[in-house]
Amino acid sequence: MRATWFPLTLVMLTIMTIAPQFPADEGMWLFNNPPRKLLKEKYGFDPTPDWLEHVQKSSVRFNSGGSGSFVSPDGLVMTNHHVGLDTLEKLSSKGKDYVKLGFFAKERKDEVPAVDLELNVLMEIVDVTDRVKAAVKPDMSMKNAFEARRSVIADIEKESLDKTGLRSNVVTLYQGAVYNLYRLKRYTDVRLVFAPEQQSAFFGGDPDNFAYPRYDFDICLFRVYENGKPLKAEHYLKWSQSGAAKDELVFVSGHPGNTDRIDTVAELKYLRDSAYPYLLERLYRLEVMLGIYSAYGKENERRAKDKLFSVANSRKAREGGLAGLQDPVMMSQKEAKERAFKEAIARKPSLKAALAAFDTIAKVQEVRAEIRKEYTMLEEAGGFYTFLFGYARTLVRAADEFPKPNDKRLEEYQESKKKSLELGLFSTQPIYDDFEQYKLAYALSWLEQTFGGDSKGVQGILNGKSPNERAAELIAGTKLKDVSYRKKLYEGGKEAIDASDDPMILLAKFVDKRSRAVREIKQTQVDEPRRQAYDEIAKAKFALEGTNTYPDATFTLRLAFGTVKGYEEGGKHIPFETTFAGLYERSADHEDVYPFDLPKRWVDHKDNLDLKVPFNFVCTADIIGGNSGSPVINQKAEVVGLIFDGNIQSLVLDFVYTDVQARAVAVHSHGIIEALRKVYDANELADEMVGK
Amino acid sequence: MRATWFPLTLVMLTIMTIAPQFPADEGMWLFNNPPRKLLKEKYGFDPTPDWLEHVQKSSVRFNSGGSGSFVSPDGLVMTNHHVGLDTLEKLSSKGKDYVKLGFFAKERKDEVPAVDLELNVLMEIVDVTDRVKAAVKPDMSMKNAFEARRSVIADIEKESLDKTGLRSNVVTLYQGAVYNLYRLKRYTDVRLVFAPEQQSAFFGGDPDNFAYPRYDFDICLFRVYENGKPLKAEHYLKWSQSGAAKDELVFVSGHPGNTDRIDTVAELKYLRDSAYPYLLERLYRLEVMLGIYSAYGKENERRAKDKLFSVANSRKAREGGLAGLQDPVMMSQKEAKERAFKEAIARKPSLKAALAAFDTIAKVQEVRAEIRKEYTMLEEAGGFYTFLFGYARTLVRAADEFPKPNDKRLEEYQESKKKSLELGLFSTQPIYDDFEQYKLAYALSWLEQTFGGDSKGVQGILNGKSPNERAAELIAGTKLKDVSYRKKLYEGGKEAIDASDDPMILLAKFVDKRSRAVREIKQTQVDEPRRQAYDEIAKAKFALEGTNTYPDATFTLRLAFGTVKGYEEGGKHIPFETTFAGLYERSADHEDVYPFDLPKRWVDHKDNLDLKVPFNFVCTADIIGGNSGSPVINQKAEVVGLIFDGNIQSLVLDFVYTDVQARAVAVHSHGIIEALRKVYDANELADEMVGK
Repeated sequence: MRATWFPLTLVMLTIMTIAPQFPADEGMWLFNNPPRKLLKEKYGFDPTPDWLEHVQKSSVRFNSGGSGSFVSPDGLVMTNHHVGLDTLEKLSSKGKDYVKLGFFAKERKDEVPAVDLELNVLMEIVDVTDRVKAAVKPDMSMKNAFEARRSVIADIEKESLDKTGLRSNVVTLYQGAVYNLYRLKRYTDVRLVFAPEQQSAFFGGDPDNFAYPRYDFDICLFRVYENGKPLKAEHYLKWSQSGAAKDELVFVSGHPGNTDRIDTVAELKYLRDSAYPYLLERLYRLEVMLGIYSAYGKENERRAKDKLFSVANSRKAREGGLAGLQDPVMMSQKEAKERAFKEAIARKPSLKAALAAFDTIAKVQEVRAEIRKEYTMLEEAGGFYTFLFGYARTLVRAADEFPKPNDKRLEEYQESKKKSLELGLFSTQPIYDDFEQYKLAYALSWLEQTFGGDSKGVQGILNGKSPNERAAELIAGTKLKDVSYRKKLYEGGKEAIDASDDPMILLAKFVDKRSRAVREIKQTQVDEPRRQAYDEIAKAKFALEGTNTYPDATFTLRLAFGTVKGYEEGGKHIPFETTFAGLYERSADHEDVYPFDLPKRWVDHKDNLDLKVPFNFVCTADIIGGNSGSPVINQKAEVVGLIFDGNIQSLVLDFVYTDVQARAVAVHSHGIIEALRKVYDANELADEMVGK
Repeated sequence: MRATWFPLTLVMLTIMTIAPQFPADEGMWLFNNPPRKLLKEKYGFDPTPDWLEHVQKSSVRFNSGGSGSFVSPDGLVMTNHHVGLDTLEKLSSKGKDYVKLGFFAKERKDEVPAVDLELNVLMEIVDVTDRVKAAVKPDMSMKNAFEARRSVIADIEKESLDKTGLRSNVVTLYQGAVYNLYRLKRYTDVRLVFAPEQQSAFFGGDPDNFAYPRYDFDICLFRVYENGKPLKAEHYLKWSQSGAAKDELVFVSGHPGNTDRIDTVAELKYLRDSAYPYLLERLYRLEVMLGIYSAYGKENERRAKDKLFSVANSRKAREGGLAGLQDPVMMSQKEAKERAFKEAIARKPSLKAALAAFDTIAKVQEVRAEIRKEYTMLEEAGGFYTFLFGYARTLVRAADEFPKPNDKRLEEYQESKKKSLELGLFSTQPIYDDFEQYKLAYALSWLEQTFGGDSKGVQGILNGKSPNERAAELIAGTKLKDVSYRKKLYEGGKEAIDASDDPMILLAKFVDKRSRAVREIKQTQVDEPRRQAYDEIAKAKFALEGTNTYPDATFTLRLAFGTVKGYEEGGKHIPFETTFAGLYERSADHEDVYPFDLPKRWVDHKDNLDLKVPFNFVCTADIIGGNSGSPVINQKAEVVGLIFDGNIQSLVLDFVYTDVQARAVAVHSHGIIEALRKVYDANELADEMVGK
């Protein structure tokens, strides 16, 4: 299952690729710099501005981490089951398990409002590179440079918000060479329409995750409402009559989360030897921990299911990425390219600054490695694994930040992000005390393991208790479970926070000083020098190779393209598509035992189905985590499929594109309609999608 | 499930407790220094020399890690299912799953020889303290001291072996204050007689592991053969008519693996902040890895089952131990005791050397922390997780060590251990290429993560390949899967090893230099100074508090005692025993879903059973991992139960004894006979045990 771009994912900036040619179907292209020349030369297809605008505005970003698209004039949004999973879990409760049993609103009045879901549609892109760069003077200290950049970005975003009312984010592209202002329409009245049983969406479980052939109905349908009525969508994708066909040119419009294709070798080695191993250690720990909790009974299992899925999914994705980094063939290719690039730079005196930039980036990695554990534990709150600490921190920091001028605040407290912050803070998601306590106890123990029991910080956090006792005390004592209490503290500002004796608030206050200090180190000794260094390298790169290229992924809208085709593996041809017949065969091959068991509905309705209908298929489009739920469309911008995964060979796409075996995996549009009609009796919904 | 004392367990020497009184049922007592005074005063019971000899010689050590006892005159040995699990797995194959389905030899001719199982019975204890200590002169360097000690121990063992023919091991007690020679009878013709389905032995799975109340039939029966015939056991335990009763005094005779009760505070902090966290990291990693392999299908699950059990079991045990170390109450008690002890020492000029010893031990921990990862990865072969590397290393080292004089060899290649070494090396256990490759690839990746891809050592080990490719190459290329090839290399000695181009042999040779170097650091900078320092502390301790005490556990035979009684938890009384009725209730409470499902036989035979018969019970005896399979006996030395676990509160017994809630968990003798007769129709076996 292609990873949604979820918080555990490594978030880091990167630089442009050194490969000047894209002989293959490479690229996560910007909508304001699409690969028109390439498409024309290779496929004879030229996307018009209208085509691009239509696709752009039909595309939806799930702010929780994932992609989607409008697929009807009435605001119907299609995404993956595993993108909707978070919402499905939040809408479930003991005895009402939408994850396990699925959900289908037969009529619009039955559609269920999501708890805290925000969808974004990209309306406009404005280049603001010159203004951002002008704010940072060459003689500034790193601290001043960081703050000047943050300040000008805050101003741009605030001005745009005031002017347009749209969510306005400045996006750093090409690792700092280009800054674009993205204006996004926010939708927060989003209602659940349809989800299959998870066992159908995630048939084959962990063994089949990131694998192919596949047989998964990984779909979830929401509807966007505006003013209490279904949105009349100006742009939505029509449904293809025929669906994805062999060797067809297709496009994927979605939000790839993060790639590291253009990292220097020093940075890749940091990822290989430090960042990935540490992240994996964390994921192994969480996977065991959540598995143990789940084993205690069905209700526990239900509560932990979406978290366990996310963790296991990330673990498998990161293992695949690490396998790429640990492959000496890939690494020596990267080294050879870097060498050649440096030699080219050395020949042009005007580009010399870029050579020193490589050294800066190497040095930055040492700082990163040094602060990694503290940053993860404190600033990313790895040592406090409970929603309730997150609420406490947001409240404590909001009280400190909001009184400051907008352009002096930490990014997430700036005006342009305020509405999204409040959506999260006032979420009515269910909170289970025992689960929160269990997670927090585990995290506190890990925190103590990390820094040692004699650390003053750890002792302050634990307050003379064992991790278990401290977690019990914190969860039992905090009133932050109550949304109205959170609202009261939020509205009460600094005074209310100072007066609060809520134990979780007190903890967040205690942690904040050191946490902010580590963040400051990261900003001034990692982020800013790194951004400046990559900017130098980018300039050299543009000078040598031109600007007809794409930046590394940043969880913003991109256009990928590719061909529907199978591949060779172990001397065998893997066909591009699977069918419903294959689903039943694979289940039978594994004696219908978990994770290869089928929901009862699929067993009962087997005879209804045309077993020859295509179910899943692959194409060569360049995707990565965050693309989950992206529509696959044809040249007429009609839906032919729904991205939900990449095969195991595609996990190296974090670092380098290849189309030898790497493939994007999608649900076939024909299979979607067939299953909706024949398995779920959802004919009206299917009619809405095909435009009948 | 009480941990068997399996290789991943931390193996370390420790020192004597500082608590002079044993007001409670504390102690893992030596058979040559039993708590006679204590038993007499508290219980009015005085074990006679005959009683002690009878119990000692009825007790059995499973060399694979666990305890057992003779329970019939025909050499029948009772232990836990999870102690026999390793053998059950080795005797199983695709379509013949003794782990899942159990095993029962209706007749003696059906009893199945174990593959590489060695049982030991302690025949004699000789004090050799003076001779060992005399060999180490005060002015020796640490290196010379280590070697002198190793040398004299090798001589003592070799002389004893030559003289008696018995397995002879010098055991270090009280962390180096006392050395005893243990003479053990070895039995290697051991045959499987009976094992229930694992789901019955391990009912409740991970959630109920280390918990109480329990309902587990955790038993396995073997028979020892000598000269092709069932052993005529001179000593065996008779069966109690009534079984364990409330408030009864009982004894546990078994082989507790390791405790750290008498560690200095500095050493406990090393365990808390360094050793346990690292071990847990390894266990989390292995648990996820083995879980993934298992998920691919039933045959994979079967192959990985005993390893997954061991890892999960260790993980839970270590988490419990860590919870103790992270409990500030326990740690401050330890600190207070150490302070008082140091003050007492300071008042006696003759004991002053003991004060400096505390500093030595603190320093030693720094070295341990430094070499921990290399030692684990290389010398403990954590980076090479396949039997086949183990074989390769043994062969490579045997070729180097055997030509040396016996007293100069690494311990495991000395004459006194040779037969056990050969038993392991020539094991005919099944080897599955895909599983070995999978484990090795994972381990090699972890090795690279640990030391970094640019490390020369890692590059030499990987030989220009990725971890996956290298593992594939090694497993496909090695001929060590073939026992006769291993024999050929072993018999061919140094010449054969030097001539071998087997890739696994070449790898073991490559690793050996650095691995031996790290071992040398450990021996001379950790083991020897630590042993000398603890010896000084022990002297002071004996001087101040007398010698009527017990040493930390060392996987040698010990006698514990306690009372059969329940305890209070969360304001509720937990009764001392459970019944068969409780088993069926607990299963029903969990809708008979895994891990609370029952084997078909238990469902079908429910009506046969007297549901009021006691099934499991608890007592206050002082046990720890390695005690698995120990008999619980009454004052007449009759079997009243079979130890298989400790409750969660008992996990702190690694560091300190408590009887407030900590309990040893056992199968009740009455329940054993009832289940054998009524569920398994094993009447003849039951008759043999009760002596009918």
